[in-house]
Amino acid sequence: MKLLKQLQWRYSAKRMNGRVIPDEIIENILEAIRLAPTSMGLQPFQVTVVKDLKVRKEIFEEACQQPQILECSHLLIFNGWSDVTEEQVDNYLNRIAVTRNHGMEELSGFRKSILSFLSSRTKDQVSEWSARQIYLALGTAIDAAAMSEVDATPMEGFNAQKMDKLFELKDRKLHSVVLLALGYRNEDKDIFARAPKVRRNSKEIFELI
Amino acid sequence: MKLLKQLQWRYSAKRMNGRVIPDEIIENILEAIRLAPTSMGLQPFQVTVVKDLKVRKEIFEEACQQPQILECSHLLIFNGWSDVTEEQVDNYLNRIAVTRNHGMEELSGFRKSILSFLSSRTKDQVSEWSARQIYLALGTAIDAAAMSEVDATPMEGFNAQKMDKLFELKDRKLHSVVLLALGYRNEDKDIFARAPKVRRNSKEIFELI
Repeated sequence: MKLLKQLQWRYSAKRMNGRVIPDEIIENILEAIRLAPTSMGLQPFQVTVVKDLKVRKEIFEEACQQPQILECSHLLIFNGWSDVTEEQVDNYLNRIAVTRNHGMEELSGFRKSILSFLSSRTKDQVSEWSARQIYLALGTAIDAAAMSEVDATPMEGFNAQKMDKLFELKDRKLHSVVLLALGYRNEDKDIFARAPKVRRNSKEIFELI
Repeated sequence: MKLLKQLQWRYSAKRMNGRVIPDEIIENILEAIRLAPTSMGLQPFQVTVVKDLKVRKEIFEEACQQPQILECSHLLIFNGWSDVTEEQVDNYLNRIAVTRNHGMEELSGFRKSILSFLSSRTKDQVSEWSARQIYLALGTAIDAAAMSEVDATPMEGFNAQKMDKLFELKDRKLHSVVLLALGYRNEDKDIFARAPKVRRNSKEIFELI
């Protein structure tokens, strides 16, 4: 399977060379994110795609000055929905109805189960649920990048509060969850570029029943 | 990119036909999980791979009696580390040292930063951090399955406490996070098999800067 070969090829590049990813390839990676499955299909996130270097310099200061932020081609900020409103649920159900040529009444049971799922959770739990969906899409983004030989470095180390302020996320009922730098590795400057991959053995991870 | 085509092909099958996935293909999907990147490389999870129907019947009762659990070929239970011990960190660092032919002393800075990351978080936060890593690997598992035309249905709806008890996870400092049914769709029984995919538009998900 080509994906396995590409997962062996990839690593989380610590240094990148500034080369710009062609539009078509970036669009494919974003399309993979858009197609990733999510809980109940709600896609409870938004992604800010930052190409602008001036903006990346501001992010750099709030993200442990990790060089990939300046050296990548595109920096993705995955933002989770902090809350899910009934309006958002109804927009989603409307989309289903239109796409699948249903009446809305056929979706009333599904509507009820989504709303009951959401109302049985605290705001923090909903935020965490949206963050998990983001990580699933993040995995898909990394796979799609690897398939195109684009390096992808996920980054959790940043000041989320400052990031939320920088992009006025709170007002938009969003919260920053994780960053992904997309670009091309700099093999000369990155001591990890040729380091063997370190993973636990299958026997340690998997238990077969 | 073949992955995009396969992401269009896939959907979360609600009914499966019981056909068994060949060993080589299952091994490839598990290998993709093993290769998925994780925070600091720690791979803070374990995966129980259930082929045994009797065990799947027990899970079925604790997971809203979703038919895929009985009709799939393999059911994966992703379990997160509930806590990370210094021993686990040192095992990981040892593996790096051996794989990359380092001395352990070269990793002392990294050791310190991992332990400081972990000690600054509550047990619940560590559990949630491990759950997020699981979702990233889940995305990769779904992609790897799609690449082999294997259907993959992620499931969050189950009684986690009962699942933890069933597999004695608490004693092993694990907690069940999400299920993934792997198998083959039953197009005759699944009304969703031919339903068009519902996704938000690119403009709604992505903001370009």
